[in-house]
Amino acid sequence: MGLRVARLRRLVLERLMRYYRFLSEGRGRRPAPTVTSAEIADALDIDPTQVRKDLGAIGLLGMGRVGFDACEICRAIRIVLGFDQPYHAVLVGAGHLGTALMAYARFSQYGLNVSAAFDTDRRKIGHLVAGRRVRSTRTLASYITRHDIRLAILTTPVEAAQKVTDRLVAAGIEAIWNFTPTRLTVPPNVFVRNEHISLGLSELAYHLTHLDVTRR
Amino acid sequence: MGLRVARLRRLVLERLMRYYRFLSEGRGRRPAPTVTSAEIADALDIDPTQVRKDLGAIGLLGMGRVGFDACEICRAIRIVLGFDQPYHAVLVGAGHLGTALMAYARFSQYGLNVSAAFDTDRRKIGHLVAGRRVRSTRTLASYITRHDIRLAILTTPVEAAQKVTDRLVAAGIEAIWNFTPTRLTVPPNVFVRNEHISLGLSELAYHLTHLDVTRR
Repeated sequence: MGLRVARLRRLVLERLMRYYRFLSEGRGRRPAPTVTSAEIADALDIDPTQVRKDLGAIGLLGMGRVGFDACEICRAIRIVLGFDQPYHAVLVGAGHLGTALMAYARFSQYGLNVSAAFDTDRRKIGHLVAGRRVRSTRTLASYITRHDIRLAILTTPVEAAQKVTDRLVAAGIEAIWNFTPTRLTVPPNVFVRNEHISLGLSELAYHLTHLDVTRR
Repeated sequence: MGLRVARLRRLVLERLMRYYRFLSEGRGRRPAPTVTSAEIADALDIDPTQVRKDLGAIGLLGMGRVGFDACEICRAIRIVLGFDQPYHAVLVGAGHLGTALMAYARFSQYGLNVSAAFDTDRRKIGHLVAGRRVRSTRTLASYITRHDIRLAILTTPVEAAQKVTDRLVAAGIEAIWNFTPTRLTVPPNVFVRNEHISLGLSELAYHLTHLDVTRR
């Protein structure tokens, strides 16, 4: 299945993720075992034809009016997105955001397991943060090599971001989940996903400003 | 200016925000006072024609080869997005993520000021979290009314999300920045921005899985 969907675009991935979240988290306590594309489309505000197309692309065919088996959809998406194969990550920067991310239990549902946290701050090293003992960044490279870690979560201060990235890349990391506002420079074989939390702020600020305008 | 750009679409907003971040944070310690659309386009991997179009839409015209005054661009974007008018927000749910968001000093740069934090946990109420005293959610509605707060940041557990939202809406909140995975039900005059942090995970997991496939 991996090869067939190798070229799924970012937008398709995001939609599959939304279907997954809706089916696994969003339908209340006792969800029906089947779901129609119209129901998914309605709940997520997506065109129903698009939903059927996406599900068709990962090999799922609905049964007329009955719709789709919800478990079947979740299972297929788990396989396509790789959630069925747990993967380990290191987290660098055990500050507030780093702690919040480690404490977020739901990540395991997506296959992610943060196996170690690193920091340069002596007051943190050796102490438990969200149930994990914080290690010195001096031991970062050897830890990555020893445990064959492929993903790193970056929650350092801006100033340290590129320096840490260089060390991660040298140690063989293949993907970085970047929560710093820094635009990282990496070789082409390393994948970076930037998480711009402040991006949402622009939309909110714009909305509030615009509301003000219409009010006056 | 507010009226002229009233219908800016989400994608345009996101690009403007990226220009803003690049110009205010991303160009190193001693950035040049001018910047060309080609430089911005190259740094952010956007088509240069699009950059010129976006800047034109908010009333900016470049000066041939010299390009744009970087400060001028930032100033224009601040006005369009409303960052020049500081706005106050309440945060509900003073857990790890809530604390991380309050501690993130850069938000003030976008006009956001988290003026109070609320929680139901007695062990937190009255204590300082990221420099703010945590208040009981019982006082939430009266605080919002008294201080004319328009924006709320939602970082509660999933189970509490809708209940808290109903109280926020009843108290007159106009926009909610939702960090819970819950799809909130709100009246049409309330704006919700959902922050799906786990969405990024799907892309990372997919990338790592796909790499595995090509390796074999």
